[in-house]
Amino acid sequence: MSDPTVAAVRLEKDLLGELPVPANAYYGIQTLRACNNFALSGVTLQHFPRLINALAMVKQAAAQANAELGQLPPEKAQAIQAATQAIIGGEYHDQFVVDMIQGGAGTSTNMNANEVIANVGLEFLGRGKGDYRALHPNNDVNLSQSTNDAYPTAVRLGILLSHGDLVTSLVSLRGAFSAKAEAFAQVIKMGRTQLQDAVPMTLGQEFRAWASTLGEDISRIASLSELLTEVNLGGTAIGTGINADPRYGTLAIAHLSRISGIPLRQSEDLIEASSDMGAFVLFSSMLKRLAIKLSKIANDLRLLSMGPRAGINEINLPPQQPGSSIMPGKVNPVIPEAVNQVAYQVMGHDLAISMAAEAGQLQLNAMEPLIAYNILEQMRLLKRAMQMFEEKCITGITANPEHCASLVHNSIGIVTALNPHIGYENATRIARRALQENRSVVELVEEEGLMAPDQLREVLRPERMIAAG
Amino acid sequence: MSDPTVAAVRLEKDLLGELPVPANAYYGIQTLRACNNFALSGVTLQHFPRLINALAMVKQAAAQANAELGQLPPEKAQAIQAATQAIIGGEYHDQFVVDMIQGGAGTSTNMNANEVIANVGLEFLGRGKGDYRALHPNNDVNLSQSTNDAYPTAVRLGILLSHGDLVTSLVSLRGAFSAKAEAFAQVIKMGRTQLQDAVPMTLGQEFRAWASTLGEDISRIASLSELLTEVNLGGTAIGTGINADPRYGTLAIAHLSRISGIPLRQSEDLIEASSDMGAFVLFSSMLKRLAIKLSKIANDLRLLSMGPRAGINEINLPPQQPGSSIMPGKVNPVIPEAVNQVAYQVMGHDLAISMAAEAGQLQLNAMEPLIAYNILEQMRLLKRAMQMFEEKCITGITANPEHCASLVHNSIGIVTALNPHIGYENATRIARRALQENRSVVELVEEEGLMAPDQLREVLRPERMIAAG
Amino acid sequence: MSDPTVAAVRLEKDLLGELPVPANAYYGIQTLRACNNFALSGVTLQHFPRLINALAMVKQAAAQANAELGQLPPEKAQAIQAATQAIIGGEYHDQFVVDMIQGGAGTSTNMNANEVIANVGLEFLGRGKGDYRALHPNNDVNLSQSTNDAYPTAVRLGILLSHGDLVTSLVSLRGAFSAKAEAFAQVIKMGRTQLQDAVPMTLGQEFRAWASTLGEDISRIASLSELLTEVNLGGTAIGTGINADPRYGTLAIAHLSRISGIPLRQSEDLIEASSDMGAFVLFSSMLKRLAIKLSKIANDLRLLSMGPRAGINEINLPPQQPGSSIMPGKVNPVIPEAVNQVAYQVMGHDLAISMAAEAGQLQLNAMEPLIAYNILEQMRLLKRAMQMFEEKCITGITANPEHCASLVHNSIGIVTALNPHIGYENATRIARRALQENRSVVELVEEEGLMAPDQLREVLRPERMIAAG
Amino acid sequence: MSDPTVAAVRLEKDLLGELPVPANAYYGIQTLRACNNFALSGVTLQHFPRLINALAMVKQAAAQANAELGQLPPEKAQAIQAATQAIIGGEYHDQFVVDMIQGGAGTSTNMNANEVIANVGLEFLGRGKGDYRALHPNNDVNLSQSTNDAYPTAVRLGILLSHGDLVTSLVSLRGAFSAKAEAFAQVIKMGRTQLQDAVPMTLGQEFRAWASTLGEDISRIASLSELLTEVNLGGTAIGTGINADPRYGTLAIAHLSRISGIPLRQSEDLIEASSDMGAFVLFSSMLKRLAIKLSKIANDLRLLSMGPRAGINEINLPPQQPGSSIMPGKVNPVIPEAVNQVAYQVMGHDLAISMAAEAGQLQLNAMEPLIAYNILEQMRLLKRAMQMFEEKCITGITANPEHCASLVHNSIGIVTALNPHIGYENATRIARRALQENRSVVELVEEEGLMAPDQLREVLRPERMIAAG
Repeated sequence: MSDPTVAAVRLEKDLLGELPVPANAYYGIQTLRACNNFALSGVTLQHFPRLINALAMVKQAAAQANAELGQLPPEKAQAIQAATQAIIGGEYHDQFVVDMIQGGAGTSTNMNANEVIANVGLEFLGRGKGDYRALHPNNDVNLSQSTNDAYPTAVRLGILLSHGDLVTSLVSLRGAFSAKAEAFAQVIKMGRTQLQDAVPMTLGQEFRAWASTLGEDISRIASLSELLTEVNLGGTAIGTGINADPRYGTLAIAHLSRISGIPLRQSEDLIEASSDMGAFVLFSSMLKRLAIKLSKIANDLRLLSMGPRAGINEINLPPQQPGSSIMPGKVNPVIPEAVNQVAYQVMGHDLAISMAAEAGQLQLNAMEPLIAYNILEQMRLLKRAMQMFEEKCITGITANPEHCASLVHNSIGIVTALNPHIGYENATRIARRALQENRSVVELVEEEGLMAPDQLREVLRPERMIAAG
Repeated sequence: MSDPTVAAVRLEKDLLGELPVPANAYYGIQTLRACNNFALSGVTLQHFPRLINALAMVKQAAAQANAELGQLPPEKAQAIQAATQAIIGGEYHDQFVVDMIQGGAGTSTNMNANEVIANVGLEFLGRGKGDYRALHPNNDVNLSQSTNDAYPTAVRLGILLSHGDLVTSLVSLRGAFSAKAEAFAQVIKMGRTQLQDAVPMTLGQEFRAWASTLGEDISRIASLSELLTEVNLGGTAIGTGINADPRYGTLAIAHLSRISGIPLRQSEDLIEASSDMGAFVLFSSMLKRLAIKLSKIANDLRLLSMGPRAGINEINLPPQQPGSSIMPGKVNPVIPEAVNQVAYQVMGHDLAISMAAEAGQLQLNAMEPLIAYNILEQMRLLKRAMQMFEEKCITGITANPEHCASLVHNSIGIVTALNPHIGYENATRIARRALQENRSVVELVEEEGLMAPDQLREVLRPERMIAAG
Repeated sequence: MSDPTVAAVRLEKDLLGELPVPANAYYGIQTLRACNNFALSGVTLQHFPRLINALAMVKQAAAQANAELGQLPPEKAQAIQAATQAIIGGEYHDQFVVDMIQGGAGTSTNMNANEVIANVGLEFLGRGKGDYRALHPNNDVNLSQSTNDAYPTAVRLGILLSHGDLVTSLVSLRGAFSAKAEAFAQVIKMGRTQLQDAVPMTLGQEFRAWASTLGEDISRIASLSELLTEVNLGGTAIGTGINADPRYGTLAIAHLSRISGIPLRQSEDLIEASSDMGAFVLFSSMLKRLAIKLSKIANDLRLLSMGPRAGINEINLPPQQPGSSIMPGKVNPVIPEAVNQVAYQVMGHDLAISMAAEAGQLQLNAMEPLIAYNILEQMRLLKRAMQMFEEKCITGITANPEHCASLVHNSIGIVTALNPHIGYENATRIARRALQENRSVVELVEEEGLMAPDQLREVLRPERMIAAG
Repeated sequence: MSDPTVAAVRLEKDLLGELPVPANAYYGIQTLRACNNFALSGVTLQHFPRLINALAMVKQAAAQANAELGQLPPEKAQAIQAATQAIIGGEYHDQFVVDMIQGGAGTSTNMNANEVIANVGLEFLGRGKGDYRALHPNNDVNLSQSTNDAYPTAVRLGILLSHGDLVTSLVSLRGAFSAKAEAFAQVIKMGRTQLQDAVPMTLGQEFRAWASTLGEDISRIASLSELLTEVNLGGTAIGTGINADPRYGTLAIAHLSRISGIPLRQSEDLIEASSDMGAFVLFSSMLKRLAIKLSKIANDLRLLSMGPRAGINEINLPPQQPGSSIMPGKVNPVIPEAVNQVAYQVMGHDLAISMAAEAGQLQLNAMEPLIAYNILEQMRLLKRAMQMFEEKCITGITANPEHCASLVHNSIGIVTALNPHIGYENATRIARRALQENRSVVELVEEEGLMAPDQLREVLRPERMIAAG
């Protein structure tokens, strides 16, 4: 007579003793301890598939290097190969259950990977879960590695693998701004500095500037992400490479470059690389910079669409949802507002990363899990926010060209273009009169006979005033 | 012949047009639009049950006030009463599906609540979902309200309802430190300032200080949470109370106080209260202060447990998981490390809140959803971190009294106690000799005959040196 | 034959050896070492006279307590009394030359005070500078104290003594907003939420809200500054009170309360109080909150004065300087812009304080000098910014009531007030028509015959729409 | 009869009216207004000579370009040339009196430069101060410029000119760490991860890692400073180049490159460049990264020098000042503590910069003065802190090699090296026994006969365990 409860768990053992693990779990005792210890953010590894893939790639590369160096028997290497390939293919991700916020400098994440790979590999070998004599999480899957080199390598790789999505969204968003720059190329409007009327420009130039500023970040993110291609695999515990074959590091990294398709290189100073978080700090700062730019653009769009009656109202954002439960017909700039909030969140994450980086001590930074979590979260939030921004807002923006033109026509700022012709003194006087008497600059210049009407018209031709840019 | 697709959706309509809503959904078209618009954090309202309860309480209070003022027919009021009571009882929370990061100043959250309550109420009235003529999300559930007063009130109340859990964890953690303070009352050890040996104290005093510093925050959180009891219900759109009966605000708040069990009061200046985020800024800062204290304590525990051989090793943290995949027997201070990381995250959230608060404009702060999200998340993270800290770390700490005593005995710092007896000059000279000759202070004082052995022993009696505190 | 260079210096000696000190300097060798060590911010103690006064008050109180306990001979006590009284009177402040950013947990600041007081006291005793046998910086001026209790006490007191100026500026600024609230009580204008036209209000209400929000901070700063009245004087090195008479602490604090006019009390847990920075963290956060409010108000004023032609232009800020070297007649909102920048700086300082607070270790926080510097700087910046804001901006603001009124008249948002009369459906339709056909709400309602003209006029009476607040 | 008070001032006039300017002042009315408006930080332009030089260089380059384009008469160009050359040579810096925190987007700084150059130039032309018909601050010195292109260009150049000093300090500090790395190459010690004993390394490796991590920042700062070589000169008011000859921008930048010795190039999108602060955000973040690294190193040095008796005590920091007024013989790590504080301050400044950058609106960022101030201050603080760190701390560090060796010998961590020989299971068991029985690993391995004594000795040879790195 079978007892179902017997089959429901298997016993596993580690340094601290024995624990029952769910029989169908591919993870093992150390993952279980981590789950018991860290119920904090509620966000587990499986929320970041690229990180899981990166972990599997590191383990695969290590196994191949170990096999070639004769440290790992071929059948074990094959089992690890099969298991990691399945994970890279998207399987078993639900077995990565540890919280992203965790103590232990990533040991729990590393062990979660080691255990899942071992148990999946055991199935490949026709063995039962937990039969670690045939394939051991530490001795085999983690062979020649320490959390302290495998984990930072995987985090860097995970970010690099996520980087494409982010940039794709950014490129696409820039494209949307560029398209609008074309569409609005002929819309003359007032430029504003310090929120005060300045001199004319086109709405196309304004959108072009947003496209340009985002464009700069495409190349900048790319160039800074290169810092992450420097990894410390082979350094093991503290960078001295203890217990690893001296040839192992270079070999494993070569495999990892091939497997991931991303050219990686070993840090020159592995001791330094074991604890240094500088690349993360700078990469997060770059994401902060992107967030700041997005927030500034969102602010500008909200300003330009103020109204509809009692504001600037130069452009219309596409309505996405009713704006008010009490004010009929009100539509709010909800998409830019959400972009702002994502930007603030990304800046908050950057602070957490800075603090975590500063908290490194001696040969390691125990706070790296928080850094990994926050960077991956920054990237995810920014990617989603940029997609939303493009699809739900930018592509649907329309202009109010007549209103824009009338603001230019009525403005005092156009007097600036007359400076070379009537002098700064006269221009200042005209500006003051216009404001006080509530009249137009053109009218006053004509009245005072300061310029011939033809010349005046020529100087104030929009094309003339907005030449550059 | 039945067509199952007909039943699978129902059509709803708003200012922007028509959309199919899943037939079994209690939320409606505006919630659906919000879900389509904001796929950002992936964290939805239902992650914060206390916020949902607070929303339901606000709606219940409003309905009661409206009914009493004759603005809402009794049967509608009863339907709203029934629906909100069910929600407060924990039902329908899975219908609160909007992302915590959202544009629109909380309109989507408010409409999510209005729609769910309307549809649950409609069932109570024996009607089908979406039959809003009988009970309307805006006209009835949102009656006399705007998002701009209902939402901020609910957020404040949601925080107040969550506050108990946080404080419970804090009180309990303080208790754990106090218990250890008792247990370690006789363990004499060196105090350290600036990481340099200072003068003796007891390990009990050290734990007592941690208990004291946390104790201060219990009352401080309580006193600052009172700022949140001031709400702007009744101000409607911008604080002028447009479209609400002048008696409504006071009445609704009285009901809300009764329903929630928390004494609330109306802001004196409702215009100011509609946009002001000051209470949130200060409450978040208070949570930041708690995080800073927890992080400092975690740092201290990691310092005191350095070792086991090449560090201070005055205390032992209970092992919670094997510390290394490569270094046998290594156990790491994983729990304090996780506490540090939570603290940094909380500080990052505080920054995001500050930025969101600064971004308010004119009569509203559109970024309030981010503020709500981050405060609730700070509270959740801190609560969980404190529980973990207590259960997995503090209660299991043991001391190494002999080692502590020997560090005192060998220290140079005890020379401080001899100042009044041998003078600062002599004391300085003895200290310098002890360091250079690697000898003990006692030995040298005896050798030089500066004090009688009896007197020396008396002055250096631990009880004498650690009197205060 | 006299050699002037001989007289130009005097030799002093400490633990590390001998150094020549300028003969006319009242500070001594330890101050000199600190100056040599820390040439960092360039901002010295003398930039904060209230901190110097606080240091002198602490030393005076300690001397009185020591004298009463028979630990300090009367003539020495008198000398210290005379010296500290002169400093409190504003003399010798130029002798406080140590950089505000310094290592050593405030020891250099404390020794700067001890040395100056000793040498001034020596003159009082008719002795030469440096003749410390007659009055010693450590043995006499610092008697019964450690830097670790004297310095934190002085910093707290220094902040409390500076607090009045800050609050005076804040009260005065609030008054300026209140005065404008009165002046603009009849100016009807559109309220805006999320930068979109909402419903009417008065400009007076808007200014009243700013007055209210600042008013809240007056009492809040007062209540949080009380946290700073808890001091650890008497705890000496680590809070155990080593080398101090058990009666000393209470006695010294009583004297200090009397001398300073501020009621102080001793911390219950002196060990905790020696390292805890919680009161500073919260006080700085409160200053951050004030900065956030000021920045929000500055943003609002810049928004409302956008123009003069192509913006909202509801109010005029008084011009303070020509705005542009190229654009004639341009005047910019330079004062609010400066307020914004001060606010950001204050928020940056708050971050530095948080990080410094988190960096405390074991029985002390060595980073307290940075905390002291930043809080005093926050207070100074805020005080000056508020004075500037009031004098150079707020008091000179004028309104454009006709323009405000015309924006209301043309707005669509007033349709909100018709809700109860024509229904939400009709109101929404009217709003949509008004926007599409560029016509006014009143016109359309009349055209459609939805309301009687009299009733319409009554409902849209400004007084009716802006009742509350 | 002469009246000295008559001569003491001269009257100047601008858009807002007339003011008396001190007769001997080279600055003029607009500078004076700015001084009256902004009494905030107390830190004036003259605190940053490199910024003043950069302003003079921009004006010189503009004058040369204008002269070549026939826009500026030769004698005026010569006067400007002479005046700017004098300023670059260090003269007249005391005339740059405007506060670094100022509204107006830098207009006051730009006008301060324009006015001083005009008045110095007037002296060169043999004319009196204020005789602006002969050389006008706006019409001549500011010709073809707006604050909005001249100021950002000068700020970028000012940072680039300051950059050398910063890097020199950094290179030198790295050198000091490298020298110690050589000196300590043979000192075997325990490596520590998560503050727990890990595996052996050399003290030289530890110092080498610090040298490496700082070395990375040398090249990274250089590469990011290149972002600042892109300037918007020629864009004038908003980037459309209004009122400037189309050839002017390129020409002026070529001159500026030659004058400054720094190759500059014009932004491709001048509209974008007028408001974008991205380069500053990233450069400040890079300074933050350096600050974080310095703080981590300072923390490590404080940890390793804990003691002298009750801590790790592996190294000795050179004493720089007595550490305590109460504890004889105590010497504290005051220099690293000051480095920590500078790091926190730099991080605070980075936050202020981020907020200021986010606050840009439409065609300009009015908060650029705060950004300029904070970056220049970050650079100054870091430069000074690194010099102090090197001279007062790093070069004087000594090691305690015997103590380091004994910690290794007694450690349990060395069992890691035995893994490949006795297996992970045995190693774990030995580690546990060593800890529980307070015995050494070597002793237990020998006792159990797990390895031959010769082999054991060979495996534990220091050189073997610390191979890599």
